Amino acid sequence: MRSEAERLKDIEPFRVMAILARARALEAEGRDIIHLEVGEPDFATPEPIVQAGIAALQAGHTHYTPALGLPVLREAIARYYGERYGVDLAAERIAVTPGASGGLLLAMAALFNPGDEVLLADPGYPCNRHFARVLEVKAKSIPVGPDTDYQFNAELVAKNWGSNTRGVLLANPANPTGSVIDATTLRGIHQAVRERGGWLLVDEIYHELIYDRAEPTALGLGDDVIVINSFSKYFLMTGWRLGWLVLPQALVPAVDKLAQNLFLAAPTLAQHAALAALAPTTRPLLEARKAELKARRDYLLPELRRLGFGMPVEPAGAFYLYADCSRFGGDSEIFVERLLLETGVAVTPGTDFAMADGRRHVRFAYTAELSRLREAVDRMEVWLR
Amino acid sequence: MRSEAERLKDIEPFRVMAILARARALEAEGRDIIHLEVGEPDFATPEPIVQAGIAALQAGHTHYTPALGLPVLREAIARYYGERYGVDLAAERIAVTPGASGGLLLAMAALFNPGDEVLLADPGYPCNRHFARVLEVKAKSIPVGPDTDYQFNAELVAKNWGSNTRGVLLANPANPTGSVIDATTLRGIHQAVRERGGWLLVDEIYHELIYDRAEPTALGLGDDVIVINSFSKYFLMTGWRLGWLVLPQALVPAVDKLAQNLFLAAPTLAQHAALAALAPTTRPLLEARKAELKARRDYLLPELRRLGFGMPVEPAGAFYLYADCSRFGGDSEIFVERLLLETGVAVTPGTDFAMADGRRHVRFAYTAELSRLREAVDRMEVWLR
Repeated sequence: MRSEAERLKDIEPFRVMAILARARALEAEGRDIIHLEVGEPDFATPEPIVQAGIAALQAGHTHYTPALGLPVLREAIARYYGERYGVDLAAERIAVTPGASGGLLLAMAALFNPGDEVLLADPGYPCNRHFARVLEVKAKSIPVGPDTDYQFNAELVAKNWGSNTRGVLLANPANPTGSVIDATTLRGIHQAVRERGGWLLVDEIYHELIYDRAEPTALGLGDDVIVINSFSKYFLMTGWRLGWLVLPQALVPAVDKLAQNLFLAAPTLAQHAALAALAPTTRPLLEARKAELKARRDYLLPELRRLGFGMPVEPAGAFYLYADCSRFGGDSEIFVERLLLETGVAVTPGTDFAMADGRRHVRFAYTAELSRLREAVDRMEVWLR
Repeated sequence: MRSEAERLKDIEPFRVMAILARARALEAEGRDIIHLEVGEPDFATPEPIVQAGIAALQAGHTHYTPALGLPVLREAIARYYGERYGVDLAAERIAVTPGASGGLLLAMAALFNPGDEVLLADPGYPCNRHFARVLEVKAKSIPVGPDTDYQFNAELVAKNWGSNTRGVLLANPANPTGSVIDATTLRGIHQAVRERGGWLLVDEIYHELIYDRAEPTALGLGDDVIVINSFSKYFLMTGWRLGWLVLPQALVPAVDKLAQNLFLAAPTLAQHAALAALAPTTRPLLEARKAELKARRDYLLPELRRLGFGMPVEPAGAFYLYADCSRFGGDSEIFVERLLLETGVAVTPGTDFAMADGRRHVRFAYTAELSRLREAVDRMEVWLR
C-alpha cells in the first residue's frame, strides 16, 4: 500500500558502515581488527578545544544561536582566512553550519533548481550526489582518472557542460583519492564555470591537510566562489558536527532563511569550542597531528605500491589512499570482504565512491597509528603472496 | 546572470528574528525589553544533563556515532515510552536526529515524492511547509480555528484529502496555539489517514508540556504512525540540537540511508548528555520547570483576555498563547512593532505561523519569569487603554 519515496531507490547506503559492523562483530569474537575503513581521524579532539567546550557548558551556553552562527565565531573564521591564506573576508559572508553536511545541503538548496545539473567528479564523496537527489537536482558524475590526478580541469568542465548545467562541485583535496588541484588548474576551472554563468563550489574540508606544498584557497579566485569547510578533519572535531560556508554576499540572506527553516542553528556548544580550535595556541597541536598523518602516508603509500596496489599519482592531501586492487583479481567488494575476514584489515570498497572504477579500487584511510599500519602491511603481504 | 534557486521565493524568513534583532538593538540603547518572542524556554539546561555533557567530554566522546544514534540512547528512548506512556517499542524503531528539524527533514524525505501533497494545519510551525518545499512536496495548509481547537479532525482530513494527498503532519500540542488533540479525535484522524493509504506524522515535541490532563502518545495508535520528538523543549536542551523519530520498522533502513548521507550523525556529546535527560533522577527537575510554565500560563491567559486579546479556547500545552489582537485594530505586524517600540514587550506576529489569520493574531511565548510577565501586562494595560 504505502511505500517509501522514489528517491530512496537512488540513494545508496555507505558500504563502509556494513564493513564497520562486520569488523565490530569480528572484534566481539576476539579477532584483532585494524581499522582503515572509516573517514575519521583516530585522534581525539585536542585538549584546549575540549576544555573550551567544558567552559562553555559551565557558563550555561545551552540556548540557540542565530541561524548563521555566533557572530564571534563568524568573525574568527573570517580572520582565519586572513591569517592562514591572506584572503580578506567579511564575517557576514560566513555561515556556520551543522557539519559540512549541513553546508552542502544549504548551498545546493540555495543555488540549484529541480532539473538543474551539477558536475561532480567520479570517484568522489558519495553524499554529494545524494544531496542533489533529495533536491531533485541532477548530479552528473564525470569519470576522472590518474591522467588528471583524479580531478576536474577546464577542459573537462567545457566538455561536459550541458544546457542544464548550472555548476561544478569539486573537493580539494578530494575524498577518496587525496588528490589536490594546483592553483593554475583551479583558476582555469573557475574561469570556465564563470564564462558559462555557473556556480563553482569547492569543498575544502581537507584543505589544511595538504602535505608537501602550499595551496591557496579557492576564495582567492573571486567573491563568487562558494567554499564548504569543516571543523571535523584538521580540527579533529568530527562528533561535534560543525562546519561552515563562505558565500557570495548576495547569497547570505537566502542561506540564512534556509538555515533558519532547515536547522534553526548549528550546535551551540560546538560553536564555543570551535573558537579554541581557531586559537593560535591550538595550532601547534593540530600541526603535530598533521605531521603524524603525513608520516603515515609516507610509510603506507610506497608499501602498498610494493605489495602491488596501483596508485599512479601521489595523493598530496587528506588521509586516504585510493588503490587499484585489480591485480589481485575480482571485485573490490569481494576483495574487501575477504581481506577483512582473512587478515582482519578493514578497508572500504571503491564502490562507495566511484561508479566508473569502484569495482577495481579500495580506499585505505590511514587513521591508525604507524605500528598498526605496519602490522596491516605485514598481514597483507603474507595474504597476497 | 546567476540567481538563487526558485524555492527561495516560497521560503520565508522567521519574522521573529527581525523582532529579536530590533529588540536587541533597543536593549543596546538602554531600553528594558521583555522577551516573549522566541520559541525557546528561558531555563538553562538542568545541571545533571550539563554534568553528563562534561563527563562525556572528559571521557573523550568526540567521534561520530552511528547515523541512527548511540545504541544505548536508542534503547533509553524506547524505555522512556514504556515507562512514561506504557507503549512497548523496539529500540530499532528509534532514529536519533540533529534536532526535531533533522527528524522532520528525514521523515518527509523518506515518505514523500515531488508533487505529493501533505496536509498541514494553518496556523502551524512554518518550517514544516518549507521542509516540504525543499523536497518539491506540496504542503497544503488547511485553515483551522477555535471551532476545532486549532487542530485537525477526521472530517477535515476527509474533506481536504485529494488525489495527490499522501499524508498528514500535525503537532500535538501545536505551535503557536498550544492546542492539544484529545485521544478520540486523534484516533479518528489516524483512521481517516490509514483508510486513504496515507501516512500520519505527529510532532510531539511539546507533548510532555500538556498541563491539565494526561494524553497518550500517537504511537499507541499503531505501528504505522511516525512520531517526531525532541530534547529541546521539555528536556531544555535547545542549543544541543538533538531530537528523535519513532518509525515504522519498515522505514528504518530508508531513514538510516538518508541520515548517513544528509547528516552523518547527530552531535555525539548531546547524545551522551541526553542519557542524563532521560534518567529518573532528572525528571523532578524537569517537572518543576513544567510547573513553572503552567503557573505562567495560568497567570498570563486570563490577564491577556482581560486586556482584550481573543483566546476563545484554552491552550492546554506548549508555552505559547496565540491571541487575537484585531480588537486593537490594524495588522499584527504593525501591532507587534508598535508594542515593542512603545512598551518594550517583544512578541511574534501571527504571520510567522498562519497564512489565513496571521494578520489578526500575535504569539506570546511565556518564556520569561512571572514577575516579567506581570510587568509586561502592566505596560500593555497602560498602552492599550
